[in-house]
Amino acid sequence: MRRVTPDLMSLNTATVKQQWNLEQCIEGCARHGVGGIAPWRDVLHEMGVSKAAKHILDAGLQVSGLCRGGWFTAEGALTPAVIDDNKRAVDEAVELGSACLVMVVGGLADGSKDIDGARAIVEEGLAKTLDYARSVGMPIAIEPLHPMYAADRACVNTLRQTLDICDKLGEGIGAAVDVYHVWWDPEIQEQIKRAGKERLYAFHVCDWLLETKDMLTDRGMMGDGVIDIPALRKGVEAQGFDGLVEVEIFSATNWWKRDPDEVMQVLIERGATAC
Amino acid sequence: MRRVTPDLMSLNTATVKQQWNLEQCIEGCARHGVGGIAPWRDVLHEMGVSKAAKHILDAGLQVSGLCRGGWFTAEGALTPAVIDDNKRAVDEAVELGSACLVMVVGGLADGSKDIDGARAIVEEGLAKTLDYARSVGMPIAIEPLHPMYAADRACVNTLRQTLDICDKLGEGIGAAVDVYHVWWDPEIQEQIKRAGKERLYAFHVCDWLLETKDMLTDRGMMGDGVIDIPALRKGVEAQGFDGLVEVEIFSATNWWKRDPDEVMQVLIERGATAC
Repeated sequence: MRRVTPDLMSLNTATVKQQWNLEQCIEGCARHGVGGIAPWRDVLHEMGVSKAAKHILDAGLQVSGLCRGGWFTAEGALTPAVIDDNKRAVDEAVELGSACLVMVVGGLADGSKDIDGARAIVEEGLAKTLDYARSVGMPIAIEPLHPMYAADRACVNTLRQTLDICDKLGEGIGAAVDVYHVWWDPEIQEQIKRAGKERLYAFHVCDWLLETKDMLTDRGMMGDGVIDIPALRKGVEAQGFDGLVEVEIFSATNWWKRDPDEVMQVLIERGATAC
Repeated sequence: MRRVTPDLMSLNTATVKQQWNLEQCIEGCARHGVGGIAPWRDVLHEMGVSKAAKHILDAGLQVSGLCRGGWFTAEGALTPAVIDDNKRAVDEAVELGSACLVMVVGGLADGSKDIDGARAIVEEGLAKTLDYARSVGMPIAIEPLHPMYAADRACVNTLRQTLDICDKLGEGIGAAVDVYHVWWDPEIQEQIKRAGKERLYAFHVCDWLLETKDMLTDRGMMGDGVIDIPALRKGVEAQGFDGLVEVEIFSATNWWKRDPDEVMQVLIERGATAC
């Protein structure tokens, strides 16, 4: 198991989204010696993709993932607009030299209770995006989200389900394993083994706070919650995962309110002590 | 598939916990023609077990379940106090003539991040309780809780996991399937089939609200959320489940604030139209 030194860490820009724009995130990573970055598309578009790609390259950062493609159920049926947007996301990931494009697949279509139907739309959308992504060599990483987001964000909710989809779709598609979403799963270690190095594209960390006050924006800093993060990292690294440890914390009442350089210092420290 | 008439429904007392004590719940069920009741132990103790049993019998109600045994991790290791309390819960369920004793198994032990350890404690606790429950003929129903409660309420979080435990422990133990906890699970129908009639002891309904504002106390009335309840009921009834449809809604800002007779009217109506 590796020691999580700053150069093995990546900053997901959502972690300091209230404090820093993308340019500041890039500078911050460079200043603190953090090895990589994972931008969200909104901040990427704000800065401009080419400019961002150049700054990231100049700063010597890796890109552990681009957040996010997916949202296939946004318009009910799978529309050309949704597919086109996913292709653009693939292109952006390529331009950034990203390790993968992370997919948050979307929840139930508006007004629908048909989760099987949503899952069918998602699978079709992934297949179509994958066709394009393969042609440009960009790995697609499905991020299974915690079941509490099944209705409104992602109807792919376990690593088993993710890998079942990957098995159907073939090469070039795998998983982004975020400890927040999977820590509770009694078969997570077994499914990580099933994934193997060839399906493990990203590893995200934060923590589950015992008294979670908001389902979306109350995630904890590593070490402040109940997730046995080292056990999960050990699992993915035992399969040969050698990508960055990406820190993605949504925290409206705590970390988003702090000095971003303090956030960087703490996450680096917790990389060493709590991951 | 049955028509859900009031006589096939059961009122879990938590649904009107802010408005009615157990005696009022019993009277309310009788007045509205609801066929059964599922008391929580706190309100049961408040009324007195023998008195409650007599009133329930006199009112002609069935008892679809006693909520709840379990909480095996409450004291870290499995203590005699915890086992004794579970045995008392079994006795109470017997005295009420309950269809089963519902188990909310407990989450992580205080200060622990060891979910595998918690699960081992739970399995031991279930085994010991089951030994006793078998001797008095009371079925034990494990209620897998939604993964968002894995840390603080129950580390048994899927029907698959529940049935794996049942397979290890043998006869007399099964599942309480609550649509709120399992609706998101991509293999729920498959696992319901695996359970079969002999492992399906209870069926609970409420709904998942699209904008859930509180992880514990913002459940919806059947029909107000996104769960395809009829599909799940069809699944359990296809296996031969013929117990009551138990309504269990925790709703601090809505249903707990309404006139309880109105709550009864609405849940009866929704039994017919949304279950």
